[in-house]
Amino acid sequence: MSLLVVGTVAFDSIETPYGKVDQVVGGAATYISLAASYFTNQIKLVSVIGDDFPKETLDDLTSRGIDLEGLQIRQGEKSFFWAGKYHNDLNTRDTLVTDLNVLADFDPVLPDTYTAVDYVMLGNLTPAVQRRVLDQLTHRPRLVAMDTMNFWMDHALDELLDVLKRVDMLTINDEEARQLTGEYSLVKAAQRILTMGPHILVIKKGEHGALLFLKDQDDEELHIFYAPAMPLMDVFDPTGAGDTFAGGMIGYLAQTDDLSFDNLKRALVYGSAMASFCVEKFSIEKLTELDVPQILERIERFRRLVHFDRENA
Amino acid sequence: MSLLVVGTVAFDSIETPYGKVDQVVGGAATYISLAASYFTNQIKLVSVIGDDFPKETLDDLTSRGIDLEGLQIRQGEKSFFWAGKYHNDLNTRDTLVTDLNVLADFDPVLPDTYTAVDYVMLGNLTPAVQRRVLDQLTHRPRLVAMDTMNFWMDHALDELLDVLKRVDMLTINDEEARQLTGEYSLVKAAQRILTMGPHILVIKKGEHGALLFLKDQDDEELHIFYAPAMPLMDVFDPTGAGDTFAGGMIGYLAQTDDLSFDNLKRALVYGSAMASFCVEKFSIEKLTELDVPQILERIERFRRLVHFDRENA
Repeated sequence: MSLLVVGTVAFDSIETPYGKVDQVVGGAATYISLAASYFTNQIKLVSVIGDDFPKETLDDLTSRGIDLEGLQIRQGEKSFFWAGKYHNDLNTRDTLVTDLNVLADFDPVLPDTYTAVDYVMLGNLTPAVQRRVLDQLTHRPRLVAMDTMNFWMDHALDELLDVLKRVDMLTINDEEARQLTGEYSLVKAAQRILTMGPHILVIKKGEHGALLFLKDQDDEELHIFYAPAMPLMDVFDPTGAGDTFAGGMIGYLAQTDDLSFDNLKRALVYGSAMASFCVEKFSIEKLTELDVPQILERIERFRRLVHFDRENA
Repeated sequence: MSLLVVGTVAFDSIETPYGKVDQVVGGAATYISLAASYFTNQIKLVSVIGDDFPKETLDDLTSRGIDLEGLQIRQGEKSFFWAGKYHNDLNTRDTLVTDLNVLADFDPVLPDTYTAVDYVMLGNLTPAVQRRVLDQLTHRPRLVAMDTMNFWMDHALDELLDVLKRVDMLTINDEEARQLTGEYSLVKAAQRILTMGPHILVIKKGEHGALLFLKDQDDEELHIFYAPAMPLMDVFDPTGAGDTFAGGMIGYLAQTDDLSFDNLKRALVYGSAMASFCVEKFSIEKLTELDVPQILERIERFRRLVHFDRENA
């Protein structure tokens, strides 16, 4: 199945307790597309960059089945740039620089070949841009997923709530779910969000894993599934982990084209597996060197991590 | 199998966003014993109280198979008292009052019928008291488990490390595991702790669940299992949840007398189930009104929460 990915393609400078990298490739759409490329080679990317982006990276993306027809390249301008420094716990970070550059007036234009896709992943961007993408679709996709962040809740809540009405699945972190609903209990927050548009909700909890909520569209019953994060010896760089998680999840759904709760659960585990790889190296490095057997081996580690028999054999 | 439980039996005054209770029954040994009493009726409690403790509570404990021969009752003195107020997130709390009272000079004396027990749970107490209990055992138990807290790391680290050498299993929270080892990664922290004495380690993460680590005594391999906390609509009172978790776990082990990794996993889930009940009401209330079918139903909910099939059926 085809997958439309919208989001940033950018440069990052990152400092973690394990080291420091300057001007490396980053961006939500980059991480989402790379993670999804292990599951489908019909990925259509929508983003904007300057003329400063390395041709080899773009060629790499193309070679992985990522269609760049929707990637605008602005001559004489610079790509979006973010610099951040992670604290020792790697759960919190300070943003040092945010240079919007080409992103400041980004108007996503979908090529004709993009308007009838099966799956859509709207990466974290201003809600107005996310809406503009949906407005250009000529066919209702099988699934529209979106990511967002607290910044838009603070600065563009009405537009955010507007886009939310038009999506099937939202990915959001636990603090954002609480902020969006005013509910501390994640179960109550989920119930509220599932009245705002989406019927599938993924609450990301970083090193504590992720919760999947599905509101059954027939009987309104709330189904809950939990996937842990893999306990790792070292997390080198958490940048992009949430996007990689979303990319693995939506990529697996596009591959299997099965939106049953059982398959959504598997998709959540595939997303967790891809995220667990992402953090093992800086930038997108690990996401460009994986193979399917490694991914399947990690899925099996996830299964063993949580599997128990109710009774003594 | 018999189970020796050492810890506080106390009064608590608790304020949470859901209400306030004064001078209710609390204490680590109370929660541990009550949770374990659903699995074994051979519980031998060691603690100390004043003459202010309600006889009905003691009768309740006795009727649940909890032997109180080792409970010292000091005439003219008052029981240990703790008062605390939880913040809105229920993950953090302020201690308002700690009156040690009878606990200040507690010298645990084991009755003769207590010295050859099968399982031991040393609740959080000063390490010197925990050691005194171990010194009085005439037979090596099948399993000695202990709980502790950051206070003893700050104030009695040498004694703590000393007791640690003599136990099989440690339960500790994530921040304490990091403090004890100086390692941020919980996998690295676990590896360090598993060289300090215990070969089984449970790292409690509150609303984020618990991790079980077993160092195989033959091949030194590290086995990891993760049990989530049950996502709940409301958490009324987190007091005693960690002790209830430990009590459910050790009680299940005493019932099944099987220390295989598969059974330790089940024990972790039983502990999580008991803790998920504990927080649904104030004080020990919920722990006195459960029945086995309710517990089994919750175990099934835990299984469904994490179970996934690797492949499409």
